[in-house]
Amino acid sequence: MSTLAPPSFTIRVPEGDERERRVCNRCGFVDYRNPKIVVGSVVRASGRILLCRRAIEPRRGFWTIPAGYLELNETPEDGARREAREEAGAAIAIRRLLAVYSVPRISQVQLIFRADLPDGEARPGIETLELRFFGFDEIPWDELAFPSVHWALRHDAEAEAGAPPIPFGNPDGQAGDVLPSGQRLADDAL
Amino acid sequence: MSTLAPPSFTIRVPEGDERERRVCNRCGFVDYRNPKIVVGSVVRASGRILLCRRAIEPRRGFWTIPAGYLELNETPEDGARREAREEAGAAIAIRRLLAVYSVPRISQVQLIFRADLPDGEARPGIETLELRFFGFDEIPWDELAFPSVHWALRHDAEAEAGAPPIPFGNPDGQAGDVLPSGQRLADDAL
Repeated sequence: MSTLAPPSFTIRVPEGDERERRVCNRCGFVDYRNPKIVVGSVVRASGRILLCRRAIEPRRGFWTIPAGYLELNETPEDGARREAREEAGAAIAIRRLLAVYSVPRISQVQLIFRADLPDGEARPGIETLELRFFGFDEIPWDELAFPSVHWALRHDAEAEAGAPPIPFGNPDGQAGDVLPSGQRLADDAL
Repeated sequence: MSTLAPPSFTIRVPEGDERERRVCNRCGFVDYRNPKIVVGSVVRASGRILLCRRAIEPRRGFWTIPAGYLELNETPEDGARREAREEAGAAIAIRRLLAVYSVPRISQVQLIFRADLPDGEARPGIETLELRFFGFDEIPWDELAFPSVHWALRHDAEAEAGAPPIPFGNPDGQAGDVLPSGQRLADDAL
């Protein structure tokens, strides 16, 4: 461990810009922050749905679909395949785009795909405590990690029941801040 | 103008991370870079399509649809409306998602909407040299700014002709690096 001076930023409008940004007081570096893209998938094997119990915060111990941040130089499909491989050891086959959700309070856009698991094989990655394949009626609704996991599982069921293949968006009036139980999530867990 | 030491970064894997990032040599600040989200719209008024001639680099002087980077805390729809307002003084009404494109080489995901212009009014913003409403047969195909502008205009025409309302993706095998003329764009102009 080296001993560096801690980061020191001022929030101001950089020259030639129109919005406030974080600017380093020592070197003038501008920390442009942009919304982030989350990619994930609802994965089915023999009709059952793959869920992962999170080994990391936020929402450690709660169930989620394989999903995470898109990396540089990745397509969304490649990112969703990588997340399924990393979190669930799963070699998924993407079928189509299920949904485009947005959670503006934390500046996230989520692209969620429908996927199959042709070989049926999965094992927990290091960010996953436990994996399980659930029938729709067995899903632990009160133990899901995020509002968008609820949305994706319900929308995937609608797609399975024959809804046209048009991507879903956020349910009416919902911004992803509150779980169906009414519980408001901490900012870092939205 | 103050005289600051210039930024000084080393590319390395920060503690607790798995990928190389730019890390400040003075304060340890990690410059996480993420893919960026572009939002835009194909805007029609009385069947004609609104295009903007770019007043800024890259691709100054070439025609484009109103589009730009999604800002923090915006939904994609709000961002597309803001870009149409800023670049074309246009109060658009979004109809639906036309396309999700990705240009992995420059880490972009593009969400392009179909939109109407109910009051028919538009005027160039500061990033726009000139505005015009084109019939499809009048579009200056050889003077379009980016490959994805080509894609969006052709996909919008397919939608207008009755294609089902499923968002389009990149045309087969295309990654957004090359114009239909075969011209390869500079990295900053992809």
